Amino acid sequence: MNNFQFYNPTRIIFGEGSIARLKKLISRKSRVLLLYGGGSIKQNGVYLQVADALRKHELFEFGGIEPNPDYATLMKAVKQVKKQRIDFLLAIGGGSVIDGAKFIAAAALYKGEDPWDIIDQNLGASLKKALPFGAVLTLPATGSEMNRNSVISNREAGQKKSFASDKVFPKFSILDPKVTYSLPQDQIRNGLVDAYIHILEQYMTYPSGAIVQDRQAEALLLAIHEMAPAALQMDPPDYNARANYMWVCSNALNHLIGVGVPQDWATHGIGHSLTALYGLAHAESLAVVLPWLLWYKRDQKQEKLLQYGYRVLDQKSQKYSERVDRTIEALSAFFHSMGMPTTLTAYGLDPDKVAEEVKAHLAADNFVRGEHRDVTADEAAEILRLSR
Amino acid sequence: MNNFQFYNPTRIIFGEGSIARLKKLISRKSRVLLLYGGGSIKQNGVYLQVADALRKHELFEFGGIEPNPDYATLMKAVKQVKKQRIDFLLAIGGGSVIDGAKFIAAAALYKGEDPWDIIDQNLGASLKKALPFGAVLTLPATGSEMNRNSVISNREAGQKKSFASDKVFPKFSILDPKVTYSLPQDQIRNGLVDAYIHILEQYMTYPSGAIVQDRQAEALLLAIHEMAPAALQMDPPDYNARANYMWVCSNALNHLIGVGVPQDWATHGIGHSLTALYGLAHAESLAVVLPWLLWYKRDQKQEKLLQYGYRVLDQKSQKYSERVDRTIEALSAFFHSMGMPTTLTAYGLDPDKVAEEVKAHLAADNFVRGEHRDVTADEAAEILRLSR
Repeated sequence: MNNFQFYNPTRIIFGEGSIARLKKLISRKSRVLLLYGGGSIKQNGVYLQVADALRKHELFEFGGIEPNPDYATLMKAVKQVKKQRIDFLLAIGGGSVIDGAKFIAAAALYKGEDPWDIIDQNLGASLKKALPFGAVLTLPATGSEMNRNSVISNREAGQKKSFASDKVFPKFSILDPKVTYSLPQDQIRNGLVDAYIHILEQYMTYPSGAIVQDRQAEALLLAIHEMAPAALQMDPPDYNARANYMWVCSNALNHLIGVGVPQDWATHGIGHSLTALYGLAHAESLAVVLPWLLWYKRDQKQEKLLQYGYRVLDQKSQKYSERVDRTIEALSAFFHSMGMPTTLTAYGLDPDKVAEEVKAHLAADNFVRGEHRDVTADEAAEILRLSR
Repeated sequence: MNNFQFYNPTRIIFGEGSIARLKKLISRKSRVLLLYGGGSIKQNGVYLQVADALRKHELFEFGGIEPNPDYATLMKAVKQVKKQRIDFLLAIGGGSVIDGAKFIAAAALYKGEDPWDIIDQNLGASLKKALPFGAVLTLPATGSEMNRNSVISNREAGQKKSFASDKVFPKFSILDPKVTYSLPQDQIRNGLVDAYIHILEQYMTYPSGAIVQDRQAEALLLAIHEMAPAALQMDPPDYNARANYMWVCSNALNHLIGVGVPQDWATHGIGHSLTALYGLAHAESLAVVLPWLLWYKRDQKQEKLLQYGYRVLDQKSQKYSERVDRTIEALSAFFHSMGMPTTLTAYGLDPDKVAEEVKAHLAADNFVRGEHRDVTADEAAEILRLSR
């Protein structure tokens, strides 16, 4: 096991009816800016619940934070924060809105010249302060409600980059499984796949003697396999399955399974390019990369692939030599069972063309990922060529 | 899944050499009181490492915090804190010293008349503040280094009681697996058993649809089974097994596996009496209760016993009707494999006599525990009669 630090001060308030708790979670003296996305919270009742809980608070609003939140949009919010002397942010949404809130919180109190430097110059570790904020999670997937990470796009510069800081943990996150009832099925599927791949990015590397973390990661994978069919049920929705879906997404990326172990994150790096260039949803982009990355790296990752196959996918009976291939097939079959494609061709994309374009895109940013820091733009292209 | 709150702001600094990090974790302006137990830290090198890291800090000392820390001892420390205007506590030890530090931290800033009321009147939830403190863990077992709980004995009043408060999470805990190298084997065994039973107190109840928490609890149990033989190896000690032993103890009681599920804690309640009346070590007292409690409650707990047997103890092949009994036997066998007795008779105690004495002891305190609140002093006596 490697040396590590673990720190996660976010308070989670979980369960049906918990949005009403907002009243006591935010000081009555605060000037609160509600942050949200395209306005679905105004149709599905979440906005009304929030407004009712905070009816005695001084509220301001900033809507229109887009998926893959854009730097220019967020800077408009920063301007509003300063003008209206906001001292508490409340993000109501999924990973994009919460990631956006983290950047707004940091940028609003940033003393440097250009807040984009926080991301571009990787200044997260040296951030001295950020505005306090909370979250009401509406789309479980990214785990942003319980971590210190934020991914921001800069459409003008053609970039999608991240920063991380202890100062941008949400003070609290409210997780009410009932808010998932209005989600379309493909968003739940995407959330499950996103969480599943977050786990594998922290697990599918090489053995490092972290027995506790390995069992914990496998526990979350097993839980997703078990809950997925009921979580995807729409009419009527299954409260308990939705609760497990919601909670597993937070646990997949709250840092606990990732401490003390090597991590990969090449799939995410390549996926970000696919989203930027072809508009694939985040989870879709990951699912067309991961099985082929595992196949391409199957010798390097052999020990963990065998362990994962044995412990999670019940790959025990066949010949040892076949287990790795059968394990990767079983992973793909699981994604297919949820209606999630695993090839570029399923989206009408030409793998060879995509490989060249992504290679250029990644090379421009000196891309290097993987637990051995050996997944380069060239390897990414080789991996994408297989995705057919 | 039940509604819940999860909150755990303790920063964990984990790994070989991490005691040196103290220098930067405690402000140079602080007046620091070192809290410790019987002085083993002065023999095993831990004290020297701490003193070296804090050589530029203003240090004071309070030693002699006994196992099952006593109220009278801790109040002496509180007096010293006030006299020396201490503003930071550093607990160096195991659960007893850290539990003691939590009470000292709360009592030092308590405005009421009698600090024993914090425990006796159960005032933890209303505590407004406590002195900040950190911990250097030397004996992994109780999980106190990463939770809000504290168990304090009052020998004068013949009581052993607990309190819990968000104000007494350690600010940080340093976990260096190498400090376990000087522990005798039976203390490591006790630590593993204590952690194992902490997990079962939060798991072995009835199904509540918490798929995530169930898999997480089973993950920790599986990890203990896997690491125990190597963790108990003395010459030479196995760093990696000790690291997993240390980290699993924290995870067993950092609140994560216990949120949203029913909990039992009857074994701990009965065990506390055994420690108070007969001086059994904490883990020893738990191990002579748990298997018999499970046997006594095997119908009520049947579903979880079957799940535990199947998923943790590999009880799959025999007839379904035999699985519950075989599961409890396999649990006892695991404890025996570590040299841990599971009967009162193994300690030369007469179960019938113990049953009557513990019944009187528990009845005096209106004892009620268990996930159905049905384990009373009478039932405790029935359970103890079986422990032979």
